[in-house]
Formats: sequence, structure tokens, C-alpha cells
Amino acid sequence: MTTQPLLSDDALSDEARAIIDDIRATRGSDFINNFWRALAHDPALLQATWDRLKQVMGPGEIDPLTKEMVYIAVSVTNACSYCTHSHTAAARAKGMTEAQYAELLAVIGMAHQTNGLVTAMQVPVDPEFQA
Amino acid sequence: MTTQPLLSDDALSDEARAIIDDIRATRGSDFINNFWRALAHDPALLQATWDRLKQVMGPGEIDPLTKEMVYIAVSVTNACSYCTHSHTAAARAKGMTEAQYAELLAVIGMAHQTNGLVTAMQVPVDPEFQA
Amino acid sequence: MTTQPLLSDDALSDEARAIIDDIRATRGSDFINNFWRALAHDPALLQATWDRLKQVMGPGEIDPLTKEMVYIAVSVTNACSYCTHSHTAAARAKGMTEAQYAELLAVIGMAHQTNGLVTAMQVPVDPEFQA
Amino acid sequence: MTTQPLLSDDALSDEARAIIDDIRATRGSDFINNFWRALAHDPALLQATWDRLKQVMGPGEIDPLTKEMVYIAVSVTNACSYCTHSHTAAARAKGMTEAQYAELLAVIGMAHQTNGLVTAMQVPVDPEFQA
Amino acid sequence: MTTQPLLSDDALSDEARAIIDDIRATRGSDFINNFWRALAHDPALLQATWDRLKQVMGPGEIDPLTKEMVYIAVSVTNACSYCTHSHTAAARAKGMTEAQYAELLAVIGMAHQTNGLVTAMQVPVDPEFQA
Amino acid sequence: MTTQPLLSDDALSDEARAIIDDIRATRGSDFINNFWRALAHDPALLQATWDRLKQVMGPGEIDPLTKEMVYIAVSVTNACSYCTHSHTAAARAKGMTEAQYAELLAVIGMAHQTNGLVTAMQVPVDPEFQA
Repeated sequence: MTTQPLLSDDALSDEARAIIDDIRATRGSDFINNFWRALAHDPALLQATWDRLKQVMGPGEIDPLTKEMVYIAVSVTNACSYCTHSHTAAARAKGMTEAQYAELLAVIGMAHQTNGLVTAMQVPVDPEFQA
Repeated sequence: MTTQPLLSDDALSDEARAIIDDIRATRGSDFINNFWRALAHDPALLQATWDRLKQVMGPGEIDPLTKEMVYIAVSVTNACSYCTHSHTAAARAKGMTEAQYAELLAVIGMAHQTNGLVTAMQVPVDPEFQA
Repeated sequence: MTTQPLLSDDALSDEARAIIDDIRATRGSDFINNFWRALAHDPALLQATWDRLKQVMGPGEIDPLTKEMVYIAVSVTNACSYCTHSHTAAARAKGMTEAQYAELLAVIGMAHQTNGLVTAMQVPVDPEFQA
Repeated sequence: MTTQPLLSDDALSDEARAIIDDIRATRGSDFINNFWRALAHDPALLQATWDRLKQVMGPGEIDPLTKEMVYIAVSVTNACSYCTHSHTAAARAKGMTEAQYAELLAVIGMAHQTNGLVTAMQVPVDPEFQA
Repeated sequence: MTTQPLLSDDALSDEARAIIDDIRATRGSDFINNFWRALAHDPALLQATWDRLKQVMGPGEIDPLTKEMVYIAVSVTNACSYCTHSHTAAARAKGMTEAQYAELLAVIGMAHQTNGLVTAMQVPVDPEFQA
Repeated sequence: MTTQPLLSDDALSDEARAIIDDIRATRGSDFINNFWRALAHDPALLQATWDRLKQVMGPGEIDPLTKEMVYIAVSVTNACSYCTHSHTAAARAKGMTEAQYAELLAVIGMAHQTNGLVTAMQVPVDPEFQA
């Protein structure tokens, strides 16, 4: 359950509908996932979030699949179940193979492990890492 | 400060020295960062960690720079200062440009933001994301 | 599922029942949420937790609704689903409007984002922030 | 140390300078804290972050001091040292008394404790909390 | 739901089956929990994870029940629901009494609370704690 | 730096001094670590925290060294540098050997790793783990 009802299409305000329409047009798909239906209670937050997501995850210096892998890594570490599912699905939609996914899991597991070891031992940063 | 002294080369046990030698040979560099000098108190843990890291971060299905970006993402989210520094340095050594780094920062920031929103609203996973 | 059965009223020990009675009296409601029914296996822990919660969340220097908003913020960041739900419900019971909730979500999202950026860049604390 | 040099005023690009000027004008202060000097390497990210922060933390449905307290709560839970310092300073600048701060600490500590207990016991959400 | 189907016995590859067989033999039980059925998609990751777990959680300097308590503590703090359940079950299987569990909960709750207070106040490490 | 000055002995209020005296008497040591000197600004919070810590970490069903190991595990996972240092020092003072510490590090690293894998794959809880 959410902390507020998910808005179906016919419950959207005019402002929210315009943004949802842009999500559909940008993605070339009618499917609107629950995150946007939850955010739609506040058109201003919906707009700010969508505008920024569209810009950040769009074409740029890093390829879209890598961006999704980074998104998965953050989401897993924040223990965000929804985000882990949605961005794993997005990574697959952008071409992530099962072999790449297996390797991504290994990297995520490795990073967690050494993060734990480093923090447990309180290792000081080497001056050589200075930018 | 660490929870135990960092071991200099001449304080290494024979088992630890053999692993440190392999790190140097594998990396083609004499520089040994503090993480390994802290782990060297326990050659078994040093060995297990290095063997696994070498395997996971080596050549595979995902390119090495992407792996470092994923590592940064996990490390930042776990608030591991050392790991953030060491893997940002590693990503740069593997060719990450400043423009890519700026975009990586934007993706990490975005992911944190939507993770927070999703968890705050407790959005249920869409069945469409099912594998 | 919990790691131990939730105790119904007739399964409470005498010590646990006395504390549950105080929760009911303090809140002016018969409803006892699952957290207390899980804690009731250990009357000492139940007592310590309830006594402290009653004191901390009661009248003081910060108004009760603000305290609930802070509680939500911590709970979201710790990815505690139960706590997010229970304190969002508590905030609404204490008068949080939907407009305030939308703004709270925006602040939580913003804080997560800049936390991620700051940690990624390892920004040093300005001396001006010193108390 | 940061992952990239903090930019002093005379190292700012024209785009970055315009945004830094707006921060100074909006805050009515010449002081620019390190977060912005680190972000200034990427004027687009600087702009997006500042624009959003200005909007979210500005006047609205929740009073500015409460917003800072929520920001502190998120920052502490994310273990963001810089953010904890900067928003504690901001809260004091907006009038937080030492008595309020002591109470805020108590609420944050309490929330962490019950988050830990709830997650350890895996307490299921009561249907009564449904929105 | 998982991000990939859980593999039943007859869907296992030969390599995966050999490892699953070793898990069964080592534990003296036919029951294979879902974690291994999810990992079985990648026999290399399955093998590395099981080999390491068997070594780390086996007989050593710390008794097996204490290791499970530490595992629970990490899992709770990482908000890993599955891990919390599986290691609480494992601790009970290794003899954890309900009185010990109640005390473990109290320690976990206490640690979370003081972690929150310390991070909120940004307390500097005493030189006396230096190794 | 802390968010508020650490109180030296002669800056303590009478209420704070009485609690600090009890800490000294209970521990049989004059050394007061910074956590208590930071908390001393609010005698009520100092008292509640110390009273609870004394009770939870004292003699009980779990031996004191195990409690410290659990405390370390939580503190590492919450990325609390101070708490990691102080409880590692406490564990050593209670007899933790270097061999035990090495094994504790291995368990903590392992737990982090499998937590990451489980959360990444969103593994559902086996019904067999039900209490």
C-alpha cells in the first residue's frame, strides 16, 4: 500500500495529465508506472521530478545502459525495492543481457563487501587519491 | 586513524607479502593503497578479498569503467569515504572524463532523490516489472 | 511475517498488559498497532521503548507535528517501511495537510539528492559551520 | 579533500558565476559554502541543484525551520557529515534554540532506535495505517 | 517477486546442481532457500558466494551463534528483510533462546540510537580509541 | 568538529556532573569519552541514554563481548565512524583477540555482500523462515 492512493488516468488534474502525457510521448508507451501515479497528487513535484529525470537519464556522456546500472546500484544500496525493480526492468529494456546482469550483481556484492571492511577498519584515504 | 596499524612492507608476514606482490604485479604499479595494508593483518582475509576483487573487476561482460562507476555508486550510498575516493581515482585512471564524472554525479543525485520519494510514498511494485 | 508472533490481547503477560493498558490510556484509543504486539514478548523492552517514546514525542520545545515529520524523514532514510507508514499516519492524525505532505516529500527528496552529491564529491566542512 | 578542486571565485566559468551571484543575492550574503564551489565544475548541475533547492526550501506550507530539521534528519541518517553540519548551522540561523536542538536530537535518536527494532522484528504494516 | 525466476531443482545447470548438492551435503538438509535458487542463474557467482560463506560462517575463533547475531545486526541495518529473516532463523537453529533474542533486539536498538546521536552531533573520535 | 562544544568537567551543570560521576563509578575509570561530553549539553538526554546503555550492555543473556561485536556491526553499517572506533576499543577491552577481530571483519564483509546480492535480486522470504 502507498501512503496515498495511486491516481488512475481519470483522477488526474489537468496539470498532472499534461505531464503524464509528456511521459507517454517521450517514452513512446502508454504504460505509466506507479511512481508517477503516486507523485501525481502534487503536479509541481511530478513536473520537477520528471523534467529532471528526463534530462539526467537522456543522451549524454555516459551511455543509457550504464546510467541504469548506476541507478540500480544506488537503489539497491538504499534498499529501495521499487526502484531496484523498475531500474532492473529499464536496464533490460535498454539491452542488458543476463550475462551482464550477473556481472553487475557480482560488482554490487563486491562493493558492499569492501565498503563494510573499509568502514569497519576505518581506513584513512591515501593522499595519492587526491584529485 | 584505523582500528589497527597499517602494515608497511617490512612488517608484512610472508603470506601477506606474497599477496601484496601479486597486487603489484597485476596492477603493474608499486603503489599499495591503505586498504590492503589494513587487511594485511589477516592474510586469509587479504587473499580472499584480493582474489575476488581481481576476478570481479577484471575483463568481462561489462567494461571496466562502467564497473568503477557502479562501485562509486554503491560506495557513495554506503557513505564510505575511502571507497568513494579510491574508486573515483580508479575510474579516472580508466579514462573517465570530467564530463562523464559530472553526468555520473547527476545520475547518483537523481537516484538518491527518487529512492527517497518512492520510499516515502511506499509505492508498490508494478506487475509489469516482473522478470 | 514477523520474526515472532504478534501477541493478541489475551496472550499478553501481566507485565505486558499493564504497559499496553498505559498505551491505550495515553492515546485515548483501543487500537494497539503491531509494533507493540511484537515488542510485547519482552515486557522490559516494551516498557523501556514506550516510556521513552512517550517522553520524547510528547509536549516540548518542538511541536508534535514537526516531530512526526522528523520521524518520517529518519524512517524513510532507514528504509523502514512500517515506520514510514505508521508515522505518516500519525502526522496526518496530528493535522498534516496534503499540501504539507507534498512539501515534506519535496524536502526529503531534495535532502537525499544533495546528500548523494556531497558524499560523492567528498566536500569538506566549511569552518564557518563550526558551532 | 574533495574528488575535485573547490573553485574559488576567480576560477568560475561565466555560467557558474551567474548562478553563484544568484545564490549570494538570494541569501543576502557573500559567503559561498564549499558544496557550491564543488558543484561549480558543472554549471548545469549547479543550476539544477540550486534552482530546486531555492524552490523547495523557500516559503511554503511548512515553516523554514521545520524544513531544516527534516533536512538534518535525512542527512544524519545518510551519514552525510557535511550536510549535517551545514543544515544544523542553517537551522540555528533560522532560529533553532539549543532546547529545540536537544529535543531534535532526542527525536532522531528515538526514530533510529525504533526503526532498528521494527526492521529486526519485521513487523507487518497495520491495515489501519492505509491512507 | 525476484528480478529473475527462482530455479527449481530440475532447472539447474550441471554446474549449479553440483554446488547445490554441496550446500545440501554441508548442511545435512534437503531444504534450499530462495537465495541460492536466485543465485543459481550464475554458477560462478553461486560458487564464489557459497564457498566464501561456508568458510566464513564455519568453525573458527568466534562461535557460530555469535556470528549469526552479527549477521542479523548487519542485515537489519542494511534493511535487508530476507537476510534478517534467514539469519534470525539460522540463529534460532543454532540455539538462540528467546531471552537472548530479546537482548539482541535491545542491543541493536541501542546501537541504532547512539549511532544517530553521534552522527547528529558529529562527535570527534577520542585519541584514546586509537589502536 | 562537533555541532556543539564538548563540555569539559568544569563546564558541566550539576545534573550533568552527577551522571558523569555515575559513568566514572560504573566503569571504574576517570576517562569520559567525547560522546558523553557532547550529550552533556542536555542532562535529560544524557541521563536517558546512559541509563539505557548501562542496562542494555550490562550482564544478561548474551555475553558482553558478543554485545560489543553486535554493536560494531550496527555501527559499521550505519557508517558511524566514532561508534565503530569506540566499540572496537570496547570489544578489545573486553577481551576480543586479534584473531577474533579478523573473523568479525570477515563476517561483517560477508553479510554486507549477501545483503547487497539479496536486495539486488529482491529474493522473497522462504515460508520456512517463519517463526
